[in-house]
Amino acid sequence: MKTYAQMNAQELEAEYQSVQLKYNAFKARGLSLDMSRGKPSSAQLDLSMDMLDTISSDRKLRTSAGMDARGYGQLDGIPETRQLFAEILGVDPDWILIGGNSSLNMMFDCISWAESLGVMGSTPWAKLDKVKFLCPVPGYDRHFAICELFGIEMVNIPMNSDGPDMDLVEQYVSQNESVKGIWCVPMYSNPTGITYSDEVVRRFAALKPAAKDFRIYWDNAYCVHHVTDTPDRLLNIFEECRKQGSEDLVYEFSSTSKISFSGAGIALMAASERNMADLKAKRSIQTIGPNKINQLMHTRYFRSSQGILDHMEKHRALIKPKFEAVFQALDRELAPLGIAEYTHPNGGYFISFNTLPGCAKRVGELCGEAGVVLTAVGATYPYGKDPEDRNIRIAPTFPPVEELELALELFCLSVRMASCEKFLSA
Amino acid sequence: MKTYAQMNAQELEAEYQSVQLKYNAFKARGLSLDMSRGKPSSAQLDLSMDMLDTISSDRKLRTSAGMDARGYGQLDGIPETRQLFAEILGVDPDWILIGGNSSLNMMFDCISWAESLGVMGSTPWAKLDKVKFLCPVPGYDRHFAICELFGIEMVNIPMNSDGPDMDLVEQYVSQNESVKGIWCVPMYSNPTGITYSDEVVRRFAALKPAAKDFRIYWDNAYCVHHVTDTPDRLLNIFEECRKQGSEDLVYEFSSTSKISFSGAGIALMAASERNMADLKAKRSIQTIGPNKINQLMHTRYFRSSQGILDHMEKHRALIKPKFEAVFQALDRELAPLGIAEYTHPNGGYFISFNTLPGCAKRVGELCGEAGVVLTAVGATYPYGKDPEDRNIRIAPTFPPVEELELALELFCLSVRMASCEKFLSA
Repeated sequence: MKTYAQMNAQELEAEYQSVQLKYNAFKARGLSLDMSRGKPSSAQLDLSMDMLDTISSDRKLRTSAGMDARGYGQLDGIPETRQLFAEILGVDPDWILIGGNSSLNMMFDCISWAESLGVMGSTPWAKLDKVKFLCPVPGYDRHFAICELFGIEMVNIPMNSDGPDMDLVEQYVSQNESVKGIWCVPMYSNPTGITYSDEVVRRFAALKPAAKDFRIYWDNAYCVHHVTDTPDRLLNIFEECRKQGSEDLVYEFSSTSKISFSGAGIALMAASERNMADLKAKRSIQTIGPNKINQLMHTRYFRSSQGILDHMEKHRALIKPKFEAVFQALDRELAPLGIAEYTHPNGGYFISFNTLPGCAKRVGELCGEAGVVLTAVGATYPYGKDPEDRNIRIAPTFPPVEELELALELFCLSVRMASCEKFLSA
Repeated sequence: MKTYAQMNAQELEAEYQSVQLKYNAFKARGLSLDMSRGKPSSAQLDLSMDMLDTISSDRKLRTSAGMDARGYGQLDGIPETRQLFAEILGVDPDWILIGGNSSLNMMFDCISWAESLGVMGSTPWAKLDKVKFLCPVPGYDRHFAICELFGIEMVNIPMNSDGPDMDLVEQYVSQNESVKGIWCVPMYSNPTGITYSDEVVRRFAALKPAAKDFRIYWDNAYCVHHVTDTPDRLLNIFEECRKQGSEDLVYEFSSTSKISFSGAGIALMAASERNMADLKAKRSIQTIGPNKINQLMHTRYFRSSQGILDHMEKHRALIKPKFEAVFQALDRELAPLGIAEYTHPNGGYFISFNTLPGCAKRVGELCGEAGVVLTAVGATYPYGKDPEDRNIRIAPTFPPVEELELALELFCLSVRMASCEKFLSA
């Protein structure tokens, strides 16, 4: 089989005609399929339904410390829930702050507070002329949206197969006082699915920022979200920081949004005592405390970190066939044609797909016109601007396998059409 | 019976000796009683336990619109919950935004966003030299704490029996561009328990602020929280605003913290379309959506605004005897002595108590030393500074009636001791 690059104009034209026929037939079916967001499927949400039975009118709602979980208070979360996530993240329970249902909300608040109140007594960012964040790309659009809202200038950092380009990160962070943060999804990164290497984690822990209020926003959303039998392993950044005496560098975030219920889970963050003191000084004015009934429900159900790991195996059984369906389609339909690059992650929620340069937007258009919604093309880059117009985030978890296969069929046709168009117009 | 003012030195000395004996006997009992916060009692929390049974593994968790309540999304809350609170507050459901479990958190966020992002495009407050808030006093300490955290200068406004001194409010608001807000608990005010008169509400709606980003922070926490058989009635401020074309003036807040579970209720705010568009532009970046399972649980249980009103009657049955116990003790022990002024609210969670000038801190000390914790004396004023050292917030709902009566016995002894000391040292 020839790649597109090897085809002459006539062969390409024939290919285009053939693909277009199939595409039009597909379009005529009037489908409506969604591969846009990293959402657990309905079957995944069903896995946690028994959790709801741990809380009922005939059960006492007391925490392990004897506190009434229905009432006010316990700003940082109930002891057993903090213990549970301390085990998962490998930190002291005192380093854990439990939030509401959204870790994004906790990230947003950290930045919002830095803007209006500063970090550990630093000048509030809103008073500064310029604040910059480093953004490994491709990355998570909701991270970028927070920066954009606050007018924080985003600097693209290339993402390699072992993590962000650390030479560049070190250079920016050490030399530029206006660089106040970097967004990281260190395990099964959104969207590339790669996990930061030990070397990269160590270099993060060893950063010597010019700005005292620089923090690494370590969004460990997929810390237990394995898909294959050969899971990745991420170094505990706080252990590396301890060796460097740099524990204050990191805000770590996580949640059960993709463990229990995506809209009604438990969000949390982990940080050093000094960071916690600073954050709680703000949090204690913001609220009297989080929803402890939901914490109790989660902790009664999962019992231990092992309980969470066991539960994740059930998710894996549902997700794995979907990832495999994607790889099969891409390997079969696109790889031989030399018009696609894509990642093969061992976990997380996404596959990062690169078209030939200049084709991604067109693929998004073609998919959309035929009833398949993708993550907005460009969204994986700050300001929605993919400089090469190549990256597409494939989110396979939500649709049932049959729908996913159908969506992929169209996706592959769209990539072939867009690639033909590129070669033919060259 | 003579008042203290009518007693001569000898009579006062005798009174002091007698009261001190009783106080010391009380102290020797080593009690530990808490009248510090406006917390529902355990029996009140028990009232809502059946709510937990509306959500279980054998029930579908679909909203009225067919959405899966377990998943992401529905930033402003599920339709049936918005409808429920729209009825309670008398606004259009589109004006309702459902939050997490804490209305304080929503107030904090409004101010935090104003600080870092501005209000409807205004200059972020963090960039201004001075921002002021008007604070009717005595008032709610957690409101004041938000202002203090953000460095917002608080201006005391005297609270009358029909609401804040509106002459002063109008003067500040219309003439001073740095005045960006006023804190109001318009119904069963914290702590005085008074409800704003129709005239006061109309004057609020008719305010002509110098600052375009001035908002009335209308914390309607006690909108259905009646205690007596003769409930107060509050005008719907948005209806009055409509007459004035001033709907954008108001952010209204409420919650079920004192309806269902104080730590696991539903918080919400109401505001005009234009304000909502501005708030949601920020909220949509902060989170993918609130906990909808909790919303579904609340709405399935209460069903309608009438369901909430019926439920509040059960609270009233538990709270009314506690308020009456306070009035009985104060009427019997203190009123005849001319050393106390206090409010007689028809609802809410507090009784506002004034000692003779200069005695409140001493009363707090005496109570504390004998094992009764009061709300920190001074807390009802900005910066904790009660200029006359008079005001004490009595929070009778949390302790059982017998404990409350015991605590009041000590409280009355402490007021008598402190008042004697004042007269004797004069």
